[in-house]
Amino acid sequence: MPLWSGRFEGHTDPTAWEVNASLPIDQRMALQDVRGSLAWAAALVKAGALTQHEGDLITRGLKEIAAEFTAGEFEFRPGDEDIHTAVERRLIERIGSTGGKLHTGRSRNDQVATDFRLWLMQNALPLLEKVKRLQRALLTRAEADFGLIMPGYTHLQRAQPVLLSHWWLAHFWSLQRDRARLAQVARRTAALPLGAGGLAGAPFPVDRELLKDELGFAEIIPNSIDAVSDRDFATGFLYAAALTGVHLSRLAEAMALFTSQEFGFFELDDAYATGSSLMPQKKNPDIFELARGRAGTLIGLLTGLLVTLKGLPSAYDKDLQEDKEAVFRAYDILNGLLPALAGALETLAVRPERLAGAIEPGMMATDLADYLVAKGVPFRQAHAEVAGLARRALMEGRPVNELPLEAFREANPLFEDDLYAAFDPQRSVERRNVYGGAAPEAVRVQMEEAQRALEQPLAQ
Amino acid sequence: MPLWSGRFEGHTDPTAWEVNASLPIDQRMALQDVRGSLAWAAALVKAGALTQHEGDLITRGLKEIAAEFTAGEFEFRPGDEDIHTAVERRLIERIGSTGGKLHTGRSRNDQVATDFRLWLMQNALPLLEKVKRLQRALLTRAEADFGLIMPGYTHLQRAQPVLLSHWWLAHFWSLQRDRARLAQVARRTAALPLGAGGLAGAPFPVDRELLKDELGFAEIIPNSIDAVSDRDFATGFLYAAALTGVHLSRLAEAMALFTSQEFGFFELDDAYATGSSLMPQKKNPDIFELARGRAGTLIGLLTGLLVTLKGLPSAYDKDLQEDKEAVFRAYDILNGLLPALAGALETLAVRPERLAGAIEPGMMATDLADYLVAKGVPFRQAHAEVAGLARRALMEGRPVNELPLEAFREANPLFEDDLYAAFDPQRSVERRNVYGGAAPEAVRVQMEEAQRALEQPLAQ
Amino acid sequence: MPLWSGRFEGHTDPTAWEVNASLPIDQRMALQDVRGSLAWAAALVKAGALTQHEGDLITRGLKEIAAEFTAGEFEFRPGDEDIHTAVERRLIERIGSTGGKLHTGRSRNDQVATDFRLWLMQNALPLLEKVKRLQRALLTRAEADFGLIMPGYTHLQRAQPVLLSHWWLAHFWSLQRDRARLAQVARRTAALPLGAGGLAGAPFPVDRELLKDELGFAEIIPNSIDAVSDRDFATGFLYAAALTGVHLSRLAEAMALFTSQEFGFFELDDAYATGSSLMPQKKNPDIFELARGRAGTLIGLLTGLLVTLKGLPSAYDKDLQEDKEAVFRAYDILNGLLPALAGALETLAVRPERLAGAIEPGMMATDLADYLVAKGVPFRQAHAEVAGLARRALMEGRPVNELPLEAFREANPLFEDDLYAAFDPQRSVERRNVYGGAAPEAVRVQMEEAQRALEQPLAQ
Amino acid sequence: MPLWSGRFEGHTDPTAWEVNASLPIDQRMALQDVRGSLAWAAALVKAGALTQHEGDLITRGLKEIAAEFTAGEFEFRPGDEDIHTAVERRLIERIGSTGGKLHTGRSRNDQVATDFRLWLMQNALPLLEKVKRLQRALLTRAEADFGLIMPGYTHLQRAQPVLLSHWWLAHFWSLQRDRARLAQVARRTAALPLGAGGLAGAPFPVDRELLKDELGFAEIIPNSIDAVSDRDFATGFLYAAALTGVHLSRLAEAMALFTSQEFGFFELDDAYATGSSLMPQKKNPDIFELARGRAGTLIGLLTGLLVTLKGLPSAYDKDLQEDKEAVFRAYDILNGLLPALAGALETLAVRPERLAGAIEPGMMATDLADYLVAKGVPFRQAHAEVAGLARRALMEGRPVNELPLEAFREANPLFEDDLYAAFDPQRSVERRNVYGGAAPEAVRVQMEEAQRALEQPLAQ
Repeated sequence: MPLWSGRFEGHTDPTAWEVNASLPIDQRMALQDVRGSLAWAAALVKAGALTQHEGDLITRGLKEIAAEFTAGEFEFRPGDEDIHTAVERRLIERIGSTGGKLHTGRSRNDQVATDFRLWLMQNALPLLEKVKRLQRALLTRAEADFGLIMPGYTHLQRAQPVLLSHWWLAHFWSLQRDRARLAQVARRTAALPLGAGGLAGAPFPVDRELLKDELGFAEIIPNSIDAVSDRDFATGFLYAAALTGVHLSRLAEAMALFTSQEFGFFELDDAYATGSSLMPQKKNPDIFELARGRAGTLIGLLTGLLVTLKGLPSAYDKDLQEDKEAVFRAYDILNGLLPALAGALETLAVRPERLAGAIEPGMMATDLADYLVAKGVPFRQAHAEVAGLARRALMEGRPVNELPLEAFREANPLFEDDLYAAFDPQRSVERRNVYGGAAPEAVRVQMEEAQRALEQPLAQ
Repeated sequence: MPLWSGRFEGHTDPTAWEVNASLPIDQRMALQDVRGSLAWAAALVKAGALTQHEGDLITRGLKEIAAEFTAGEFEFRPGDEDIHTAVERRLIERIGSTGGKLHTGRSRNDQVATDFRLWLMQNALPLLEKVKRLQRALLTRAEADFGLIMPGYTHLQRAQPVLLSHWWLAHFWSLQRDRARLAQVARRTAALPLGAGGLAGAPFPVDRELLKDELGFAEIIPNSIDAVSDRDFATGFLYAAALTGVHLSRLAEAMALFTSQEFGFFELDDAYATGSSLMPQKKNPDIFELARGRAGTLIGLLTGLLVTLKGLPSAYDKDLQEDKEAVFRAYDILNGLLPALAGALETLAVRPERLAGAIEPGMMATDLADYLVAKGVPFRQAHAEVAGLARRALMEGRPVNELPLEAFREANPLFEDDLYAAFDPQRSVERRNVYGGAAPEAVRVQMEEAQRALEQPLAQ
Repeated sequence: MPLWSGRFEGHTDPTAWEVNASLPIDQRMALQDVRGSLAWAAALVKAGALTQHEGDLITRGLKEIAAEFTAGEFEFRPGDEDIHTAVERRLIERIGSTGGKLHTGRSRNDQVATDFRLWLMQNALPLLEKVKRLQRALLTRAEADFGLIMPGYTHLQRAQPVLLSHWWLAHFWSLQRDRARLAQVARRTAALPLGAGGLAGAPFPVDRELLKDELGFAEIIPNSIDAVSDRDFATGFLYAAALTGVHLSRLAEAMALFTSQEFGFFELDDAYATGSSLMPQKKNPDIFELARGRAGTLIGLLTGLLVTLKGLPSAYDKDLQEDKEAVFRAYDILNGLLPALAGALETLAVRPERLAGAIEPGMMATDLADYLVAKGVPFRQAHAEVAGLARRALMEGRPVNELPLEAFREANPLFEDDLYAAFDPQRSVERRNVYGGAAPEAVRVQMEEAQRALEQPLAQ
Repeated sequence: MPLWSGRFEGHTDPTAWEVNASLPIDQRMALQDVRGSLAWAAALVKAGALTQHEGDLITRGLKEIAAEFTAGEFEFRPGDEDIHTAVERRLIERIGSTGGKLHTGRSRNDQVATDFRLWLMQNALPLLEKVKRLQRALLTRAEADFGLIMPGYTHLQRAQPVLLSHWWLAHFWSLQRDRARLAQVARRTAALPLGAGGLAGAPFPVDRELLKDELGFAEIIPNSIDAVSDRDFATGFLYAAALTGVHLSRLAEAMALFTSQEFGFFELDDAYATGSSLMPQKKNPDIFELARGRAGTLIGLLTGLLVTLKGLPSAYDKDLQEDKEAVFRAYDILNGLLPALAGALETLAVRPERLAGAIEPGMMATDLADYLVAKGVPFRQAHAEVAGLARRALMEGRPVNELPLEAFREANPLFEDDLYAAFDPQRSVERRNVYGGAAPEAVRVQMEEAQRALEQPLAQ
C-alpha cells in the first residue's frame, strides 16, 4: 500500500502501478537513501522535531536496514512503490510508529534528489580513476613505443610522419578533458537539495548547513523549487559520459583500423579478441566495436533526458523518474568499457615493420616544399611545384623520390641534389620540433606534461 | 568456453568478457532462437547436409530445450556468451556431438538477425492491438461525450468552440497513423536473413523459400551482405515507437492540463492517480507525466541506434549488439503505457459545467467577422473591425457581447441587432459543418469513419 | 504591419519581431502558397462566399504574383511577417480591397500546413530520382566489375571472399528501402489540411473534395484539429532522410577506407577529390567524408523536430514553426550529396591487383571446415580443428595453406591432399550459390532483380 | 581555382564542388581569419621564415582586407572554396606573390580551428551578458512582485503556496548555472591550436607562446594531432546552449500556461504578443512558444555534432566541416531569444487577484498535518488522517476548511479549534523559513544572494 493511499478510494489499477513503480531502478540507491535519512533524523532532532530518544531509535533502525541491504537480506514487498517507500515501510516494521516520524518536513521530492546526487558523488570518483587508468595505459604505450614512426593521417590518407607516441598522446589529452568534465560534474552535483520539502522548503528550522556537512555536499541549493526540479547534474553527467564515449569511439575506430590486416600496425592480444562461430580463422576486435557502438547509446541517453527535461511544466513532475535509468546505464557502460580498453591497449603488440612499411616518400612532400621555401620561394608557389612533381611521379608510376634531379629542376631550378634528404621520415619528424609537435624532443616534453597531468589536481 | 576458442590462446580477459557478453539482453529471444534452429535443421536435411536421423535428433533436442525455456527451467552457464551459444551448448549436452552439426553453413550473423526479426514480428501484433485499444477508448469517449462543447485552443489560448468528441478524435487519428506505421514495420521486418551465413551466403543449396515459409517471413533478403548488416527494421520500429511516444506525450500533456484545478475539465479516477508522500491533499496524474517523460526516452533510443548504425564500416560489426536493448526497452515502454492510458481515459469523469464555463464570448469573434463577411465586407476588413471591438471590450473591462449595439455600429454600420446571435457557441460549432469540421453532424460522420478504421485492414 | 494588428496597442517589440518572423525560411514556399490560394479562391466561389467576378479578380492577381516570384521580381517588405502575409499584402496592393476577401474561412494554420505538404509532395519526386541515380551507379558498377573477387569483411577483418559486384549491390538494396520510405512519405503527405481553418473547420460549405483534386492530394484529413497540428509527414521525411544519410554514411565510410593507401581497392577520380592547402601530395576523399559528416546533421534534424513536437500542448502552437527549416535543410543535404556520390562512383577506378592481393588463404578456413563436414565431421568439431590449424600456422609464421599435409592430418586424419583445393577463392565464392549469395550465378540473378527494382513501381 | 589544384587533373565536378564549398557558412569568421593571419605573419617573422619587410607587406595587406570586410566591400569569387582561401587569394591580388608566403608552415587544419575558437571566444561574452539581462529581468520581477502569494505546483497540481518572487528566482538560478557553463566553455575554448600545422606541428621554431598572447588565448594545446581534431569546445557550447534552451523552454512553458485564460496569472504586453490571421480576439504568446520550440532545435544541433564527431577515424576529417553551422545556428537562436524573453518579462502585467483566487484551502493540508505533528502525532499517521479529511471534504463537496470541528476530531481528537489557523496561506508561506525556502524572510536573503551572483565573477 503506497504512502499516500489515505486520500484515495480503491486500489491503483495494476497496469498503472506497473508503469509507475520505480523500485527496479531506484533500489540501486538504497544505501544513499538510508544515509540521507540518517542525516535527516539528526537534523530533526536538532530542530526539536524529534526527541533525542526518537532520533536514536530511528538511527538504530536505519543502520540495521543498511546492514540488511549490505548483506543482501533486505526483502522488498509488492507494495513497495520505490526505494524511499520500502525503507520507511521497513523502518516502521522494525521500530514501530516512531518510524512514521522520519518523513516529517521532508518530501520524496527533495529526498530523491538528495539520494541521486549522493549516488553520483560517490560513483564519480571511481569512474574518474578508471579514466585515469586508461590515460595511464596510453602514456605507458607512448613511453614504450617511443621512437617508432608511423604515418599520420588526415582524411584517412597518409599525410605526414609522426611519432607513434605522439598519436597515443593525442588520445591521452581528450581523456584528460573528459576527466576534468566528470570531476566538475561531481563538484556541481554536490549541492544539497534536502530541506526543500515538496517544493516550498521545510516548515521547521532545519539546519541545512549541518545536513550539507554531514552528507558531504559542498553547497546548499538556494531555492527550494529549483532544488526539487533541477537535474542539470544528471544531464551534465550524461553529456560528460557521451563525450567520453565519442572519444573512446574515435580511439576504438582507429584501433579497429590499425588491427585490420590492411593496416596491420597492431596485433590485439588473444585475451581481448573474440572469434567467429562460423569462420575458424577470425580474430575480431569486438571490444573496440562495442566501444564504438555504445557511444551511440550514450548519445541517445543524453538526448533522451534533455528531451524529457525540456517538457516539464512545474517544479517537480513525474517525468523526472526517467533520469536515473539513463544515468545508471551510462555509468555502467563507461565502467565496463574503460578497464577493458585499458587492458586491450596494455597488452597490444606493436608491429614496427608494418609501421615503417607504411611510410612512403610522398608523405614528405611538405618537407620538399619547405626546401624551396628555405630558398626564398613563396610557399604557395612551392606547394604548386611540388604538387606538379607528385602528379608527374604518379603518372610515371614511381615514387616521387625516384624522379631524377632534372625533373625536380624542371619544376624549379633552385632544386639541388641535397633535395633527396627531405625524404627522410626521421628528419621530417624532427623538424616538427615546436611545442606540441611530433618531434621526439617535443614529445618527450609532452610526456612529462602528461605525467604531471595525471599527478596534479584537475584544473577547473 | 565460447564457440570460437579453438583459435585463441588463453582465456578472454574477464573485463572484456563482461563487456562482450550479450546474454542478459538476448536471452529474451530464446524461443525465437530455437524456432529458427528448428527450421534450419529441416533445411539442412533437405539440402543433404544432415541425415534424416540427425535432423530428427536435433529437432527433438531443440524441442526439449524450448520446453525448458517455457517452463523456466533452462539453466544458463557462466560460459554462455549469448543465447545462441547457450542453446547450442545445451543441445550438445542433450544429444551429443550431433548437436555440433546444427551450425553447419550458418553463422551467428544471420542467426541473430533472424531471431531478432522473428521476435519483432511476433510482438508487433499484440502491440498493435494495444494501440487499437487506446483508439477504442478515445472513440468510446467521443461517443459518450457527444454534444458537449469545449474551448478549442491554439497557442494554448481559447480559440473557437469545438465538440469535445472532436477533440478526442483528433488523438484517435494520430494513433491510427501510428498503427499503420507499426504494421508496416512488421511487414518490412518479415524479410528473411537466414541463409546469408557470415556474410557470403550458405555454402550448401539451402532452400531459403522453405525457410521463409516455415518461419512466417514474407520475402527473402536478396543480398547476403545486406542480410547480416541491415537493421532498418529496428530503427523503423524505434521511429514508429518514438512518434507514438510523441503522440502519447501530446495527449498526456493535454490531459495533465485538463485535469489541473485551473482547467478542471476532467477528473482522473482514483485508480489511475497517485498521491504525495508529503502533501495529503495531492492527487497527481503520474500516468500522464510518465507518458510524457518516456517519450523523451523513446526519442533517445531512436537517436542512439541511428548513431550506432551510422558508424558501421563493414557488413557485420559488433556495434550492432546495441540494437536489441533499444528495441526491447521501447517495446516495454509502449507495452506498459498503452493499456494504462486506455484505462485512465475509460474511467475519466468529465465535468460538463467546467467545459461550459470556459466558453467565453470572445471565442465567437470569428463568427462575428463572418457576420460582416456575409454582408459583403471583405474578411480582412471585418477582422480588423472585430479586433477593434475586442480591444474596446477589453479596455472597458467587459465581454465583447456586452458592448451596446452602437459600439458595433461605430465599428461598422452594417451591424444590426441580430449580431448577438453570433455569440451562441452552439451555433458557432454547427457552422463548422464541413468534412472534418467540429460541427455535430460532421463529427458523427467522423465517428463512423473512425469505427471503420478500427475494423478495416490498415492502409499501406 | 501584421494582419492581426487590429486588436493590439502599439507595435511589436523589434526583438520579438525578429524571433517571430519566419519569412527568411518560408518564402521558399511562395509558389505553393499561391497555388493553394488559387484553389481556395475557386472553392470560395463554389461555396458562394465569393462572386465569380471576385474570384476571377483574385485569380488574376494571384497569377501575376506567381509570375513575379518566378521572375524573381517579387519585393518583400519589412512588415511581411511570413510568406502568407506577403502574398495577401501584395494581392491587396494589386487588386484592391477584394484581395481582403481571400482569407475568408481560412487560417494561416491550415494554409501553412497545405503549403508545406505541397512543397514536400513536389520535391519528393525529384529526390527519389536522385536516389535512383545513385542506385543505378551502384548497379552499373556491379555490372562493370563483375567477376572481380574482393575480401568480404566482418568486424573490419577479412572474412570470406565475395564478388565485388555483390558488395556494390548490398548498398543498392539499402537505397531501395530508402526510396520506398521516401515514396511512402510522399504518399502520406498527400492528405489535405485545407478547409480546417484555425482548428474547427471552415464555416462555409467548402468543397474539400474539389480542393483535394485541384491541389493533387490523395485524401482529406478527417479531423480539423489533427489537420492543423499533425506534422508526422515532416518527421517521416526527416526519418527517411536520416536513415538514407546513415546508409550513405556507411557507403562513404567504406569508400574512404577502400580509397586509402592501405586498402587501395579504388582510386577516386580527380574531379571528385580535393587536396590540401599544406601537403602537396594529398588527395582527399572529401565527398565521402562530407556524406559521413552530414549524416550526423540529418540525425540531429530528426531529433530536433521530434523533440519540438513532443512538447506541444494544443492544436496549433507556434513551436511548429521549426518544422520547415529542418525539412528544407535535410532536403538540401540529400539533394546535394546524392548526385555527387553517384558521380564519384561512376568515375571511380577499380584496382583489381589490390583486390586480388588482399585475398589470403585464411579466408577459406570455413571452406576447409566444410571439407571435413562433407566427410561427416560435425561442424563444431571441424571448426575447432581448423581453428587449431589457423593458430598453428600463425605461430609458425606461414599461411595456413602452406602447412604440410601431415599437419592437417594431425588435426584430423580425414584430411587428404585434395584439401588444398579448398583454398581457391574462386571456388569459395562459387560455393555460395544460394539465393542472395556471393556466387557469380547468384549475383547475376540479383542484378536482374535490381534492374527490375529500378523499373517497377515501388512496393508499399 | 582551389589552393591545391596543382596535383590534380581537370576540374572539380560542380556537384562535388557545391557539396564541398564551405564559404556560405565560414565567411562569418572573416575577421577572425584575418586576425589569426596577422599573428601568424608576426610569428613567421620572429621565426625567421619571413623578412621584416615581407611581414610588413603582408600585415598591411591583411589590414586592408579586414577593412574591406568591415566596410562590406570584400568581393568573393566563384573559386573561393572557403574563407581562408578567399583571404589568401585577395592578399596575393593586393600585395603580389609575397602573399603566397603567408601559409608557410600552416595548414587550414590549424587555421580553421584557430578561427573558430576565436569566433566563439569573442561571441561568448556578449551572449553571457544577454543571459545576465534575463536573470536581471527575473530578479527585478522578484523584487517588484514581492509579497504576492501564488500556488506552487508539483505534477501541475496545486501543491503549496509560495511567494511569486520565489518562483521567479527558481528560474534565475537555472540561468546562473547556464551562465557558469557558458563562461567555462569560453575558457576551455581559449586553447591555441595554431602551430599544429596539418597535424604534425609547424616545421619552423614558431613561438606559440607569442601566438597565444597575441590572440588572447589562455593556453596552448600540447599535442598537434589533438589540436586539429578536437571539437570538444564546440560540443561544449552546443551542450551549454541546449541546456539553456531547456531552461528557457521550461520557463516559457510556464509562462504560456500562466498567461492562458484558465490560469490568468499574467498578462503579456501587446508588444510581445501576436494575433491570429483568422480569429480577431486572439492574443498569442508566440515568443514563449518559439522559445519552447527552438529548445528542440538546440537539442538536435547538439545531437547532430556529437554524432558527426563520433564517427571520425583520423586526426582531421572533412566531416568536421559540420561544426560551424551548428554552433552559429545555436548562437543565433539564443542571441535572438534571450533579449526578447527579457523584454517580455519586464513588461508583463501580474494579476494579483487571479493569483490570490487560485489559493485553495487544500493546499494547506501539509500544514494541517504539521499541526498534529506538533502535538506528537507521527507524520505518517497525521498525513493519513488529513488525507482522510481531504477525501471527506471532497465527497461532501466542500473545501476542507469548511468541515466542522467534529469532523476533524473524529479524524484525530487532538484537533482543537485553533486548527483553522493552519489554512492561512500567509502563515503557510511564513513557516517555510528555512534557507532556500518560500518564506518572505528567506526570499529576501535569496534576492540578496541573487544580486551578488550577478555582480561577482562566476564560480568555476
